[in-house]
Amino acid sequence: MSRLDSAIRRLQAQKAALEDAARRAAGIDGPALEFGLGNGRTYDHLRAILPGRRIVVFDRQVAAHPDCVPPDEDLYLGDLFETLPRALADLGHTAAIAHLDIGTGDKAGSMALVARAAPMIAGLLAHGAVVVSDQPIEGVPGLTPLPLPPGVDDGRIHMLQRV
Amino acid sequence: MSRLDSAIRRLQAQKAALEDAARRAAGIDGPALEFGLGNGRTYDHLRAILPGRRIVVFDRQVAAHPDCVPPDEDLYLGDLFETLPRALADLGHTAAIAHLDIGTGDKAGSMALVARAAPMIAGLLAHGAVVVSDQPIEGVPGLTPLPLPPGVDDGRIHMLQRV
Repeated sequence: MSRLDSAIRRLQAQKAALEDAARRAAGIDGPALEFGLGNGRTYDHLRAILPGRRIVVFDRQVAAHPDCVPPDEDLYLGDLFETLPRALADLGHTAAIAHLDIGTGDKAGSMALVARAAPMIAGLLAHGAVVVSDQPIEGVPGLTPLPLPPGVDDGRIHMLQRV
Repeated sequence: MSRLDSAIRRLQAQKAALEDAARRAAGIDGPALEFGLGNGRTYDHLRAILPGRRIVVFDRQVAAHPDCVPPDEDLYLGDLFETLPRALADLGHTAAIAHLDIGTGDKAGSMALVARAAPMIAGLLAHGAVVVSDQPIEGVPGLTPLPLPPGVDDGRIHMLQRV
């Protein structure tokens, strides 16, 4: 499969998974959490499919399109392992959705980052909350795998639920 | 439409247009020209759909995935208005396909670049050759618009034929 085909599948998988998460978490109050703002593409999509829901964003810095920059009060900027404890103090375990898009070109580094962050992120989630992640998340207490939406290739994205 | 939806449509339009160009130009010998290598995504796709055809690439520098870097002999690196005359001397008007993906965030600058480059690119094309462009190309002698493939939004990509 060419890198163009692969990119299309990846973005389609993100779209399908985020929309599935929005449906599954519709009955849960509380914010959506976006880990990794990047250029703001999925943040923009979350805004579109979650009208009225607060979207709290974590990243090292803001490098998004100017029209995809979250308001200051919804931004946790800096090292994730410094901002996550602050977010837990601010938000408690209230989040309805968490989207992790923190993979870099460095596969081993991305997986290590997610393995370390996922238990802390799980602590921010309300019961029944849905996690969408570009990296696999395994063996985190309280997180159980969800099936992917129809048409999404196995392994291209990952969904879990807080139980 | 969210930026995620827009990105999916843009990549799908690239894919559909390149595959349509490959079909239309199947009977023409000569290389495909890729203007703007970027991360190498569409170069990789052209390699996949044009087996055996030389793909000649123009860019300021190589910033592609390591597995999408063209061989040195197929690369024209540097300012387009210095490399285009060299390419014309080397290749003559033999190209079967030209893909222009040279837009930047600067819309006016991108359109000005394409307006200046398109007549020179047209000079590299064989009769019947197909142009796929991210920017509109209008009023260039010898280039006439082609209809877009089914399902591609008008204006998201542009196709022309050398007549």
